[in-house]
Amino acid sequence: MTMRRGFASDNWSGVCPEIMQALQDVNPDHNEAYGELADPVSLAAIERFKQHFGNDIAVFFVYNGTAANVLGIGQLMNSYQAVVTVRTAHLDVDECAAPEKFIGAKILKVDSADGKLRPGQVAPFLKSLGFQHHAQPRVISISQVTELGTVYTLEEIRALADVAHANDLLLHMDGARIANAAVSLGTDLRSLTADAGVDVLSFGGTKNGLMFGEAVVFFGADRGRGFEYLRKQGMQLHSKMRYIAAQFDRYLADDLWKRNASAANRMARELAGALDAFPELSITREVEANGVFCIMPPALIPGLQEAFFFHVWNENPTGPAGASSSPGMEVRLMCSWDTTHEDIRNFEMLVRQQLAQSTERQATP
Amino acid sequence: MTMRRGFASDNWSGVCPEIMQALQDVNPDHNEAYGELADPVSLAAIERFKQHFGNDIAVFFVYNGTAANVLGIGQLMNSYQAVVTVRTAHLDVDECAAPEKFIGAKILKVDSADGKLRPGQVAPFLKSLGFQHHAQPRVISISQVTELGTVYTLEEIRALADVAHANDLLLHMDGARIANAAVSLGTDLRSLTADAGVDVLSFGGTKNGLMFGEAVVFFGADRGRGFEYLRKQGMQLHSKMRYIAAQFDRYLADDLWKRNASAANRMARELAGALDAFPELSITREVEANGVFCIMPPALIPGLQEAFFFHVWNENPTGPAGASSSPGMEVRLMCSWDTTHEDIRNFEMLVRQQLAQSTERQATP
Amino acid sequence: MTMRRGFASDNWSGVCPEIMQALQDVNPDHNEAYGELADPVSLAAIERFKQHFGNDIAVFFVYNGTAANVLGIGQLMNSYQAVVTVRTAHLDVDECAAPEKFIGAKILKVDSADGKLRPGQVAPFLKSLGFQHHAQPRVISISQVTELGTVYTLEEIRALADVAHANDLLLHMDGARIANAAVSLGTDLRSLTADAGVDVLSFGGTKNGLMFGEAVVFFGADRGRGFEYLRKQGMQLHSKMRYIAAQFDRYLADDLWKRNASAANRMARELAGALDAFPELSITREVEANGVFCIMPPALIPGLQEAFFFHVWNENPTGPAGASSSPGMEVRLMCSWDTTHEDIRNFEMLVRQQLAQSTERQATP
Amino acid sequence: MTMRRGFASDNWSGVCPEIMQALQDVNPDHNEAYGELADPVSLAAIERFKQHFGNDIAVFFVYNGTAANVLGIGQLMNSYQAVVTVRTAHLDVDECAAPEKFIGAKILKVDSADGKLRPGQVAPFLKSLGFQHHAQPRVISISQVTELGTVYTLEEIRALADVAHANDLLLHMDGARIANAAVSLGTDLRSLTADAGVDVLSFGGTKNGLMFGEAVVFFGADRGRGFEYLRKQGMQLHSKMRYIAAQFDRYLADDLWKRNASAANRMARELAGALDAFPELSITREVEANGVFCIMPPALIPGLQEAFFFHVWNENPTGPAGASSSPGMEVRLMCSWDTTHEDIRNFEMLVRQQLAQSTERQATP
Repeated sequence: MTMRRGFASDNWSGVCPEIMQALQDVNPDHNEAYGELADPVSLAAIERFKQHFGNDIAVFFVYNGTAANVLGIGQLMNSYQAVVTVRTAHLDVDECAAPEKFIGAKILKVDSADGKLRPGQVAPFLKSLGFQHHAQPRVISISQVTELGTVYTLEEIRALADVAHANDLLLHMDGARIANAAVSLGTDLRSLTADAGVDVLSFGGTKNGLMFGEAVVFFGADRGRGFEYLRKQGMQLHSKMRYIAAQFDRYLADDLWKRNASAANRMARELAGALDAFPELSITREVEANGVFCIMPPALIPGLQEAFFFHVWNENPTGPAGASSSPGMEVRLMCSWDTTHEDIRNFEMLVRQQLAQSTERQATP
Repeated sequence: MTMRRGFASDNWSGVCPEIMQALQDVNPDHNEAYGELADPVSLAAIERFKQHFGNDIAVFFVYNGTAANVLGIGQLMNSYQAVVTVRTAHLDVDECAAPEKFIGAKILKVDSADGKLRPGQVAPFLKSLGFQHHAQPRVISISQVTELGTVYTLEEIRALADVAHANDLLLHMDGARIANAAVSLGTDLRSLTADAGVDVLSFGGTKNGLMFGEAVVFFGADRGRGFEYLRKQGMQLHSKMRYIAAQFDRYLADDLWKRNASAANRMARELAGALDAFPELSITREVEANGVFCIMPPALIPGLQEAFFFHVWNENPTGPAGASSSPGMEVRLMCSWDTTHEDIRNFEMLVRQQLAQSTERQATP
Repeated sequence: MTMRRGFASDNWSGVCPEIMQALQDVNPDHNEAYGELADPVSLAAIERFKQHFGNDIAVFFVYNGTAANVLGIGQLMNSYQAVVTVRTAHLDVDECAAPEKFIGAKILKVDSADGKLRPGQVAPFLKSLGFQHHAQPRVISISQVTELGTVYTLEEIRALADVAHANDLLLHMDGARIANAAVSLGTDLRSLTADAGVDVLSFGGTKNGLMFGEAVVFFGADRGRGFEYLRKQGMQLHSKMRYIAAQFDRYLADDLWKRNASAANRMARELAGALDAFPELSITREVEANGVFCIMPPALIPGLQEAFFFHVWNENPTGPAGASSSPGMEVRLMCSWDTTHEDIRNFEMLVRQQLAQSTERQATP
Repeated sequence: MTMRRGFASDNWSGVCPEIMQALQDVNPDHNEAYGELADPVSLAAIERFKQHFGNDIAVFFVYNGTAANVLGIGQLMNSYQAVVTVRTAHLDVDECAAPEKFIGAKILKVDSADGKLRPGQVAPFLKSLGFQHHAQPRVISISQVTELGTVYTLEEIRALADVAHANDLLLHMDGARIANAAVSLGTDLRSLTADAGVDVLSFGGTKNGLMFGEAVVFFGADRGRGFEYLRKQGMQLHSKMRYIAAQFDRYLADDLWKRNASAANRMARELAGALDAFPELSITREVEANGVFCIMPPALIPGLQEAFFFHVWNENPTGPAGASSSPGMEVRLMCSWDTTHEDIRNFEMLVRQQLAQSTERQATP
């Protein structure tokens, strides 16, 4: 069975060796199921979260990012309330209506060229407060890293938290790639969450070397009150909880989360540099974390995808990038903890070959 | 960190070595996420299911048994319909209202002394068909092994399938312990599911040596049409799908499922035999799979639980078992793939000691 | 177009003349839609509720009893919580799973021979509090009048409120026939609700002379906070609100609610007296409000139904009533505000004729 | 109690005399509840619908437009599917997330300057078909009359139906003001629904003289299979059904629906004509039905609203209308079946007075 390497997503990568070892270390013997009170593995993992995020938190493990987002937000709101986010948000675009189904609520969206929500974009929705025909804004949700590879600064997060709290709203952060953001900002995990005013965090690791599992972290332990029932009802309570807990314990034990994310971010910059050298290609967004967005000639894409799969992000890019005369398509190339220099050299070489062949074909009458 | 061994549940056990190895074997390199079409690991696992259950099936991996039951049943019905099951069903008792939340439907229940539903018990609910004020019966759900440790015979399953199909209902089987049932019946997996008329199966493995993941198997591939969307919306689509698929591939590759379940069932019989030798204890249900139900003096329980945790099933057992003059409590002792002869000898020894101390205390004036 | 009179339900009756007049009185001219703040009709109706129930209430109009029950209860709980009620509760039996769909919660039920819930029956469910696998009991729901025609005393209601409040639960009353209960108890509306510890009331009128509409009354105005959104989301906000408000304003303005209910209760007693005179018939429950339950020979039923429709309540009555050698069926006969002495005399006559014919047939060899 | 006349919405009007009479005509005597089979009033009303829409329909009465839209659409789709509509759709904007709550599905929206959806706007969403991360487009929903007072032509409806059916989607029409549209187009009710390819219609009457109630009409009776359960579960089954049925029976019996709608449309044109004569005011949209959109000086608005309430539609109108140098606000003025010439003259006079005073104030140094 042969598997392609590629840049499709950071979840095409495997599990990093340290995590694999942690799973084996925790395997022998019996252990209390469901992470219930005396389970030492879960207790240790929760302790680890407190070391990073402070003591006044409530942490719960779920299976994946969809659930962390939906249940974490669902904990904070009623069905007649609404979430404000950007139109590119994974929460809205890529969850097959999971938020609508489970929370029953509305997602209010604004346009954003760089994937970031601005405080001023929240204001128009606040006019709905008190009007019984409109879903009532209650949660602001941002992705850190955003779906467009950009990273909110601490000030930007704080400004959104301020507008939220000034209007009795709460701030949710989808941290599927939070490690990449922290590395990008050169900050610790607490500074860009609890200290910046975030109320609930989906803390992901699967895109950064874990096998499965995601953590929902409530800042202010009281916010998490009763969440264990919502998790169970949300079909997200794992019986053999130790295998999620052990991964997070290890992930946060030393700088593993940081090392993995640093590697991915570094490789993204290297990849962007390599591609930028081709005049036929055009990097469309600043590489702030582990994603590279690039416009390339459409004819080039299938051949590259066959060897290194990746996704076309935008078939008809417009705006600053698309404003060029290039009739190209924008593609997204994600690097992960296990992307190698060799991957990049091979990809670069392939681009060169394909471009050469393409030029040759055009030159032939 | 010390962990207690025990008989609390078969999900207190770890992951069996073969599965742990399979997870490592599939780890290197990149792999298509979400089990999407070209993922060779998922394809291989699905192929394996077809070897066991026939080709006309649709198989989907989810995270756990709650989801397999809720989504598998949810696929077959509308929110205004109803599921018929027994009052002890895990689906109703232990899922924190997950079926009500996700399906929106009603669970109709009947009493059952042995955990089995009888065809005649379905009939009264059929009178609701066509009456707009009542939820409309649509699915019959049974657990194999039942929550009381009993095993449906093939004839019993077939009879329920017949009453279902004769009334345009469908039959769901919660197979959290289906391997233990198959071993108990001495049959293969297909005989007690597809061939007995089951329409959808929650195929579990976590209680029998797996780390996480459960399979939903639809008999008649058409029944599964669109289930991928329901799974995603149900927050159950794993990105690194290979780690679920690889477990099931290995589990079904040779007789691993059978060996593990056989060990658990054998240990349960051994445990029951050991306990039955104490006149103060009374085995309350035939040991058909890997669970032992036993009435013991309440004073005995805390000391035993401290060393080997287990759950009190019924504080006030009545009926045939409780009809005895014994003022005992009924406890449930579950054996798993990794229960050892030593576990049983140690438990037996502890029972003997505690009983002796108890007699001593009573003898002391 | 000919319509049968009958005893099928008190909602087979029409609209009483005073209500019809109120609808016409409020018809001319324009009026603010949705009962929004300046709507004088809605304001007047709410004022009327305060005269009866005290000032610290929040009142909202919805369309029907299903909605009043589901939304009123839904306001008080999360989806992972549970409602405790009796197995005969309309909420569970006759709402086609509306509570499950809209609240997402579980309904926990106990048996009750007379339709009443007892405080001691709540206790077993309280053991689930704090156990993450179980839906968490949050609301106790009772029907006043019960579905079996019985009426809770003030002491019985208070005892349930006490057990609720002592355990951080709340008490809901389905008052579809609350006027009949108040008349039966000889009390005012406040004594058997707010003063007895009820937290939320579904206040019905359709079964007692109204055309449409039901009121949800929260005791403690804060309990109703945000309910206007839940009502809108629950598809229960009427645009031309004045036509619901005007009915309730008139209904509560003088003793209309009491006169109508008194008439219905009185007719039920008269009907029961008439039927009790036949040795072949047997009144099975004390007539406390406007329902009469009676066991009659099955052969009698179709002929009676043809002229005066009513429902068979129990085809195989058991217990004290059914313990008689009579192979009869239990039927339910509901009287309403417009049941006449003539209705009863005609029904009585018909029973006599049918019984005579039946005797004749049996006498003929 | 004094009530303001106004142009806020056509649901500020009362009930027209013919409907009021119909309610009284049907009042005497008993009648089968819930519109169940032998209820002659419901049967007659359904027959009336068939006279207008053809025999192959299924008709169900619910309480209001929210419910007709949500349940009618909900009948056609699963929770993992999506509705495509315009960003101004009442379904999305003004239902407090009722569709999300009850259907659990996503609403996909496009911009529209005139409130109409174009077939070409549907295409981009169709790319999601088959992609498991995206809600699957299933229903196209249009409002006829649109929320911007425009009316789809028969050809425009047909084109949308064609794009729907070509892609296995279905077409829903929100007909809250369908009578006004039919009058505007000079067509009968069938031509712009069944004959134009509509699959399900929310047939409203409350905005055109009814007291309460809305009809859901499925074209192709099979489409409505099981809808009675969804209605009951959706808390929309009225017990005293005759009072909804009788209104629709009367509404459709002669040209009442048409007369009322014609009056409203005519008054809207008259109102627009009157306002257009003021150079300070600017009619922003063609008056195709009973709504008038007009930009007026902001200072004028409060004084007018006090006497004749209406809603500001857009505080900062842009585009063709707003492109004028006028710093005005766009207001919406709705006429209804009972709007009088006097209303319009009085409003016109008031505008004149206010403008004069305003000029005077400006002229005063």
